[in-house]
Amino acid sequence: MPEFGIGIDLGGSKILTGLMTLDGEILSRRLIPTEAGTQAPAVIIDKMADSVMELMAEAGGARKIMGFSCAAPGPITYPHGVIMDSPNLGWQQVRLKHELEKRLGQKVIVGKDTDLAALGEYYFGQGCQYDHLIYITVSTGIGGGIIADGTIYHGTRGGAGEFGHMVVNPNGYYCFCGRQGCLEAQASGTAIAKMAALTMSGAGNDWANQSSGVITAHEVGMAARAGQKEAGRIIASVITDLSNGIANLVHIFNPQIVVLGGGVMQGLQDIMLKSLRERVMEEVFPLHGAGLQIEVTSLGSDIGLYGCLAAILQERDK
Amino acid sequence: MPEFGIGIDLGGSKILTGLMTLDGEILSRRLIPTEAGTQAPAVIIDKMADSVMELMAEAGGARKIMGFSCAAPGPITYPHGVIMDSPNLGWQQVRLKHELEKRLGQKVIVGKDTDLAALGEYYFGQGCQYDHLIYITVSTGIGGGIIADGTIYHGTRGGAGEFGHMVVNPNGYYCFCGRQGCLEAQASGTAIAKMAALTMSGAGNDWANQSSGVITAHEVGMAARAGQKEAGRIIASVITDLSNGIANLVHIFNPQIVVLGGGVMQGLQDIMLKSLRERVMEEVFPLHGAGLQIEVTSLGSDIGLYGCLAAILQERDK
Repeated sequence: MPEFGIGIDLGGSKILTGLMTLDGEILSRRLIPTEAGTQAPAVIIDKMADSVMELMAEAGGARKIMGFSCAAPGPITYPHGVIMDSPNLGWQQVRLKHELEKRLGQKVIVGKDTDLAALGEYYFGQGCQYDHLIYITVSTGIGGGIIADGTIYHGTRGGAGEFGHMVVNPNGYYCFCGRQGCLEAQASGTAIAKMAALTMSGAGNDWANQSSGVITAHEVGMAARAGQKEAGRIIASVITDLSNGIANLVHIFNPQIVVLGGGVMQGLQDIMLKSLRERVMEEVFPLHGAGLQIEVTSLGSDIGLYGCLAAILQERDK
Repeated sequence: MPEFGIGIDLGGSKILTGLMTLDGEILSRRLIPTEAGTQAPAVIIDKMADSVMELMAEAGGARKIMGFSCAAPGPITYPHGVIMDSPNLGWQQVRLKHELEKRLGQKVIVGKDTDLAALGEYYFGQGCQYDHLIYITVSTGIGGGIIADGTIYHGTRGGAGEFGHMVVNPNGYYCFCGRQGCLEAQASGTAIAKMAALTMSGAGNDWANQSSGVITAHEVGMAARAGQKEAGRIIASVITDLSNGIANLVHIFNPQIVVLGGGVMQGLQDIMLKSLRERVMEEVFPLHGAGLQIEVTSLGSDIGLYGCLAAILQERDK
C-alpha cells in the first residue's frame, strides 16, 4: 500500500529532495548543491535520481511510493517537462521528465517550480480554502503560478504565470529579457540590489559598512528599518511597483487570495506586507477587493516539496 | 425538439436580440435602443423580455428553444448575473439574471459581454481550434475575456478579464477608475479622442475640418492614414501601449491566440494590426511566441449573439 510521496525541488544553487507522508509530513530531506555551472545536465540529473533512490530505500521500496514529482525553474514545457532556455541553470532543451523517468523507471510529474508552489499553497498552505489563487514569488527573480478552479493553469505549453515579465513601468529599468520595466526588473531582489548600487554610486550616501561593495536586498531592508532614507525610498519604490503588479493580476484573475513567497518577500514582509495590502485594496474595484486575502506563504523553503506532494495527490484523485 | 437559441446583447446604447440555429445561423435580429439614461432598469429589462418573446413566437414557441443567454456589460457577478456598478449603464446592483428569468419563466445564462465574446470566438470565430484564447475588446473602453482549457475563466465572482485596468504606464493618463495609466486610459477609443483633443489644444495643429471640436478615434485614424503627423504619433502611442499590454497577457496566460475586437480595433486594424503583431512577437519569450496567433475578430457586431449561442451550447454539452 503506497504511503509516501517523493518530491524533488531543483533550484539554481541547490537540489532539495524529500520523502513525505500523504498528509504532508516531511519525514526526510536531502540537500545537494546543483553545480550547474561546472557539471553537465546529465550528471546533475544522475545526482537527483540517486537522492530519490536513497529516499525510496528509506521508505521501504518503490511499492511504498504513491508518486514522484519534480519542481524545476522555468521556462519549462508542460506536460512534457522540457527545460527550454533556463537563465537559472544555463540549460537548454533538457528533457528533464524523460531523463528522470529513464533513471528511476517511474512516472515523474514535472512542473514549473512556481506552478507547483502555487499548488502546494492550495493543498497545504493558507490557500487551501481558495479555488482561485495567485502565487507570486519575489526572490532573485519574480515568477508566479495560477490556481484556477482548483488546478494549475499551465497555458498552451506551460508558460503561463510569468508575472515577472509583465511590464509595470515602460520607462523603468531594463530587464535581462530585453524589455524595459518588467516587474522583475523593478521589484526583485536583483532589482533592489541594483537600485542600492546606483544609490551608492551617488554622492553623500551613509550606508553602513559596505566592505564588499555589493548591497543585498537583505541589507537594504535592514537599512530601511534603521531609518536610512535612501533605503526607505528603494523599498517604497518596490512597494509601488509590486502593488501595481498585484492589482493588475487581481483585475485579470479576480482571485480569492494572493500568496506571496520567495526569500525577498519573506525576509522583508515586516516592512512591506502592510503597505502592499493597503495599496492593492485602494487600487482594485469593489467586486475584486471584496474578501480578497493577501498573505505571505507559511511554507517557507519547503514550498517546492509541498507542491510536489500536492501534484502527486492531485494526479491520484483525478 | 429544440432547434434554436436566443441571445440578448445588452449594450450601453442598444440592445440586440437574435434567434439562431444551433449551428450558428442568425435567423432574426432585433435592435432596440437601451435608453439607460432615461428609463429605469426594470423598464429596460421589460423591453429585453418583450423582444425575446417576439423571437420565441417567431420560432414556434418555447419548446423550440434550447436555451437563452444574455451578454451584459461588467462588472457583473458570475454565476448570479448581478450588475454591480456599471459605468456603461449607470446601473447599480441590478439582478439581471433573476429579473430576466422571472419575466421569461426560463433559465437564462447571463455573462459579461467580453467573456461571452471570447466564448463566441472559441465556438464560431477564428479561435475555434484553440483551447487557450485571450479576447481583448478595444472600443470606448477596453475589456477582455479568457478561454482557459476551453471554458470561460470567471475568477471568484465573475471579475476576471478586466484587462483594461491593467496599469501599463504608471505615469500615463488618469483613468475613470482612479488609477493612472490603465490600458483603457492609454489605448481605448476614449483615450485616442482625449489625446487628439490635447493635441488640438496645442498650437499649430493642422487637423482638417474639426467643426464639432470633438475628434473621434475614427477621425484620428483617417488623419493618420493621410499622413498627418500628430495623428500618426497618437496611433504609434496606442500601438506601444496595446502591444505592451498584449505581451504582458501572453506572458501571463501563454495563449495560442489573441483575438482583438471592438469598434476601434476593427476600424483601425489596417493601420495597427501589423505593427501590433510585430511588436508583441519581439517582446515575448520563444516559448510564448511559438505558434502564437494575433487576429482581429471576424464576427463583427454579432460577436455578442454568437457568444450567447456558444454559452447555450456549452451548457447543453456539460
